[in-house]
Amino acid sequence: MSTAADPVRVAVVGLGYWGPNLVRNLYELPDAELVGVCDLDPDRLERIARRYPDVRRTTSYDELLEDPTVDAVAIVTAVGTHFELASAALEAGKHVFVEKPMAGSVDEAELLVAMARARGLTLMPGHTFLYSPPVNAVHDLIRAGALGEIFFLSMSRVNLGLHQSDASVIWDLGPHDLSILRYWLGESPVSVSAMTRCCVMPDVPDVAFVNLQYADGAVAHVELSWLAPSKLRRTAIVGSERMVVYDDTSVEPVRVFDSGVTLRTPANFGEFRLSYRTGDIVSPRIDGTEPLQVEMEDLCSSIRTGREPRSSMEIGLDVLRVIEAIDRSLREDGAPSAVESTLATR
Amino acid sequence: MSTAADPVRVAVVGLGYWGPNLVRNLYELPDAELVGVCDLDPDRLERIARRYPDVRRTTSYDELLEDPTVDAVAIVTAVGTHFELASAALEAGKHVFVEKPMAGSVDEAELLVAMARARGLTLMPGHTFLYSPPVNAVHDLIRAGALGEIFFLSMSRVNLGLHQSDASVIWDLGPHDLSILRYWLGESPVSVSAMTRCCVMPDVPDVAFVNLQYADGAVAHVELSWLAPSKLRRTAIVGSERMVVYDDTSVEPVRVFDSGVTLRTPANFGEFRLSYRTGDIVSPRIDGTEPLQVEMEDLCSSIRTGREPRSSMEIGLDVLRVIEAIDRSLREDGAPSAVESTLATR
Amino acid sequence: MSTAADPVRVAVVGLGYWGPNLVRNLYELPDAELVGVCDLDPDRLERIARRYPDVRRTTSYDELLEDPTVDAVAIVTAVGTHFELASAALEAGKHVFVEKPMAGSVDEAELLVAMARARGLTLMPGHTFLYSPPVNAVHDLIRAGALGEIFFLSMSRVNLGLHQSDASVIWDLGPHDLSILRYWLGESPVSVSAMTRCCVMPDVPDVAFVNLQYADGAVAHVELSWLAPSKLRRTAIVGSERMVVYDDTSVEPVRVFDSGVTLRTPANFGEFRLSYRTGDIVSPRIDGTEPLQVEMEDLCSSIRTGREPRSSMEIGLDVLRVIEAIDRSLREDGAPSAVESTLATR
Amino acid sequence: MSTAADPVRVAVVGLGYWGPNLVRNLYELPDAELVGVCDLDPDRLERIARRYPDVRRTTSYDELLEDPTVDAVAIVTAVGTHFELASAALEAGKHVFVEKPMAGSVDEAELLVAMARARGLTLMPGHTFLYSPPVNAVHDLIRAGALGEIFFLSMSRVNLGLHQSDASVIWDLGPHDLSILRYWLGESPVSVSAMTRCCVMPDVPDVAFVNLQYADGAVAHVELSWLAPSKLRRTAIVGSERMVVYDDTSVEPVRVFDSGVTLRTPANFGEFRLSYRTGDIVSPRIDGTEPLQVEMEDLCSSIRTGREPRSSMEIGLDVLRVIEAIDRSLREDGAPSAVESTLATR
Repeated sequence: MSTAADPVRVAVVGLGYWGPNLVRNLYELPDAELVGVCDLDPDRLERIARRYPDVRRTTSYDELLEDPTVDAVAIVTAVGTHFELASAALEAGKHVFVEKPMAGSVDEAELLVAMARARGLTLMPGHTFLYSPPVNAVHDLIRAGALGEIFFLSMSRVNLGLHQSDASVIWDLGPHDLSILRYWLGESPVSVSAMTRCCVMPDVPDVAFVNLQYADGAVAHVELSWLAPSKLRRTAIVGSERMVVYDDTSVEPVRVFDSGVTLRTPANFGEFRLSYRTGDIVSPRIDGTEPLQVEMEDLCSSIRTGREPRSSMEIGLDVLRVIEAIDRSLREDGAPSAVESTLATR
Repeated sequence: MSTAADPVRVAVVGLGYWGPNLVRNLYELPDAELVGVCDLDPDRLERIARRYPDVRRTTSYDELLEDPTVDAVAIVTAVGTHFELASAALEAGKHVFVEKPMAGSVDEAELLVAMARARGLTLMPGHTFLYSPPVNAVHDLIRAGALGEIFFLSMSRVNLGLHQSDASVIWDLGPHDLSILRYWLGESPVSVSAMTRCCVMPDVPDVAFVNLQYADGAVAHVELSWLAPSKLRRTAIVGSERMVVYDDTSVEPVRVFDSGVTLRTPANFGEFRLSYRTGDIVSPRIDGTEPLQVEMEDLCSSIRTGREPRSSMEIGLDVLRVIEAIDRSLREDGAPSAVESTLATR
Repeated sequence: MSTAADPVRVAVVGLGYWGPNLVRNLYELPDAELVGVCDLDPDRLERIARRYPDVRRTTSYDELLEDPTVDAVAIVTAVGTHFELASAALEAGKHVFVEKPMAGSVDEAELLVAMARARGLTLMPGHTFLYSPPVNAVHDLIRAGALGEIFFLSMSRVNLGLHQSDASVIWDLGPHDLSILRYWLGESPVSVSAMTRCCVMPDVPDVAFVNLQYADGAVAHVELSWLAPSKLRRTAIVGSERMVVYDDTSVEPVRVFDSGVTLRTPANFGEFRLSYRTGDIVSPRIDGTEPLQVEMEDLCSSIRTGREPRSSMEIGLDVLRVIEAIDRSLREDGAPSAVESTLATR
Repeated sequence: MSTAADPVRVAVVGLGYWGPNLVRNLYELPDAELVGVCDLDPDRLERIARRYPDVRRTTSYDELLEDPTVDAVAIVTAVGTHFELASAALEAGKHVFVEKPMAGSVDEAELLVAMARARGLTLMPGHTFLYSPPVNAVHDLIRAGALGEIFFLSMSRVNLGLHQSDASVIWDLGPHDLSILRYWLGESPVSVSAMTRCCVMPDVPDVAFVNLQYADGAVAHVELSWLAPSKLRRTAIVGSERMVVYDDTSVEPVRVFDSGVTLRTPANFGEFRLSYRTGDIVSPRIDGTEPLQVEMEDLCSSIRTGREPRSSMEIGLDVLRVIEAIDRSLREDGAPSAVESTLATR
């Protein structure tokens, strides 16, 4: 076990599209020591070797787990393997970072959470957007009450990009927005519904329109798509006092609109008078830190101190509960589906 | 009755926000003669008089209907009065133009259609967007097959604008997008569902997320809102061959993306290979004609020739059927609701 | 002469492209009474008559000048006629509003100013941009010192628009930016130089790049063009404390960048350390008033009170002095040319 | 000497801001072998060593030049050292790549060119933008005649970025636009003039407005600045047939406007009739290749074959001739200055 004085010794498992980014960040992080990389594909190991020749490489996951100098594993593999790899690591006494979504089902995720708790190990899902500076700027505005009551959120995340043949766009892109919503609002929706279409491949939804309803009246809509004329990452948050547009493709990723609607006291019976207020627009300066670096720092710090990371296993579990509810709604032709109750942890 | 040689003699009823625009267009149109304006409010009549002193003004609708020199009335009043005013005009043998939505219910609209048909009179709902040059440019692209199969449409129409205390955002803004969809696709959806919220006033939805499903597999999503950080009029149409973004607030209102997805024959069992194609983007030059002018010309031409206007009573009826289905879905907490069957008239 | 209680009685001379806008504004302005319109072209008079049948029309300018009920004339004709029409009106004791540029030369303008002063009449050039809300928002920021020292300004005004065969782009578009600069900075440049090209017609410059140098070290660059891929109205004002982008084609016409450069004390000889500061960006809410309306109000108020309008004859004269200096520079192949000395009237 | 079969053996000299990018590209290029890196600062060598442990490191430039296994040096140091380092390398029989500007003066550059020619060695200045895909797309459009006659170009390159205390913005940013202009038009301007201001540091111009005039009538304007509210990289090219906007910060870096101006035959004496044509706008798909990679390939290919690279020493020399003419204009308060005659090499 590492102490506060020593770097946390982490091995990265899975060197596909995203894994090398973790390798790079862990390699450069003072708090961490990259002690190994693991992949079944020798070519991928070879490519890492050219850049980081002093890092141990292996095709054997078991070898890593048996190595007492490995404190933690970072699992960056296909979703279908998350449970098996993560549970084996927890079993072996390793802390676990696992890419989102945390597991292939709520049942699997609950088992992982129970294992981590029983062993006092850190289990951290990779909801990287929770470490994005603009996401945190919006989080702080919401929590400070600057937006007033949150009326609704409208989110679009559409790419002409990677199309994963073995998944649905909801499992692929959904965790981003669902984790952001969970982080901003501090609670899960009580009910969801969705409409999707499988445009390109049978049985693989590649566009989804998801509705979410919250206990306090807030509603959210999330559009997810692998098919789009152009990349679109636009989230509007409409509150009673202010409105915000968050767009992580923009050089001004957060824009705060000092706009609102006031309902004046009716002058006479039945007559409502609305007053629209349109004020200044502010683009606050946003820090340019790489989210993955902050995420890896949070991982190391959580392992050392035992506290929950910002991207906590509860959030990872909640995201899966919402995804499963969305899948239930889809099986019932879009009828609303209740989300399994969880404790809000604002 | 007017003949092809004479201008159609039209009176405008209702001089609120939109009515004066009809007055101006009819006044300047060679095919029409503006023979009168009618409103209960003498101040509004007075304002028209300053600009058009030679046009007859009256507060009596009956007087207009009794006047044999009036060929047609253009009704630009609150929705709740459409049926009463339109049916009286048809009864009096007048052609009728009536602002969208055509009536306060499907039942009312069906009665109006029956009356117009029985008397051989033109009944035209005011779906002005069907005369918008960019809407027609997209229509032509779709009908020419340039987009391939229509996979899905995503439409946003959000304003920080007029908030109508006596209606819902669905009745206020919905007819725009629903008529455009009906015009582009040539058919009504088979099923709709919706989520709304009443943010400002009790029982008045001011934001709505509407899902529509079509018989051929296409799906559409429409976001409507009176509350938003900034005006947003964005419609993405994703087809198998090309994609289009239509935005009537942009100086380039139609952008055609030569992008698509190809599903290659699987190399071996169970393996799909997708190929994304990203090509040129074209902003076709769009004519700057005022839609309302073309709409008024279509009204006059339809009255003269007896043919259906582009904004036909069938489209007006279909729009109301979809709106009523949306309201049913809302009463059932967002469960999908079937849209009353209508004949497609591609 | 009108008193404070009576509206100022104005006649509009010249009903081409811009004149009808003055007619409309004067017609609707409580402070003014539109007492006549004058143009040599009976068709143009006829078009005005349809809209404003109660306004007197004439093809005889002399008739207007002889009419004692006319307090002021607003001259909206070609530049070449400004002097003759304005001097005749001043001679006849009428107050004069004259479109920009005020006259065809500095000499002519000086004569007009002298005549107006001698007779105690208002002479107001039509620098409408001085009444534009965003121009005034920037003016207030500069004068309040919010930008710190003004380092430089870069202005682009390019259109694919009206191409006036009898003028140069400098005489056509230049007065806009030159009057804005004069208003913002409160002084004229001491020296100017320019490069132009006559792309389409011989001897008619349709693109110009103009440099201006001010006594206090500030420099400005103005790009003017009738030929451009798209309309561009962008002015950047770079100050030591803040920077501003003003773009009157944008829904956010003024954007204030809390950015700057600090020169730290050198740590050792010859070494300079610069620190860039990048802060928030603010789009202040800008009033939507029509500039022409405020300009006409200022005209009426100046006539009544005898005070100088914001768009003063001194500013009109200074603009002409700069334009003549630009023309001198062009005749000397772009060599810098001194601007005739004027008194700054901050 | 390398043969076509062997990779070209290159050493990189200077590991400041830009050097490591050459290191990365040369390391990964099949045509090249990175045989050494050289810098006076051991820390910089150490940083390279972590990434590329197998590459030889040295603080001795002489050692590199004496090494017969080094075919070429890539000099990425401060401008003031270019001549000394490049001439020593040519003296030692090495091919030379040298960052832009090629030398500190025209005289120095002419000497280098003479040395390279005398020894039959490649001398290539690093005008990387000549390898940028959008710059080449525009080049091809111009050369194919798609724009018709080139009327004028307007270029802005403004950053709130690196501020080099030992140079002027003209020497720092100017070579980019001047090399692009030389590449697109195939010739140098005949005359230039400029206005600058030293806003932050005495005697260091940090904003410049440069005018260029070409023999065939084309004119160009270049705005260069280290001080700006936001990054701006906008080049408009206005031709008689089409217009282009090139913006390398945009996801659509090249936009082609099918717009133009036609001068119709005068109907009667002295009357000109202009017709503006506004057509479609096309954003051609642009390849995403990294310019520096193509540049390094061109370097290797030129060394092997002896042909001139696209970024030729003639272009490098011409860029310096224009910069020196700009400096002359500045010393004469902005008076136009002739550019030393060079042979056009279209």
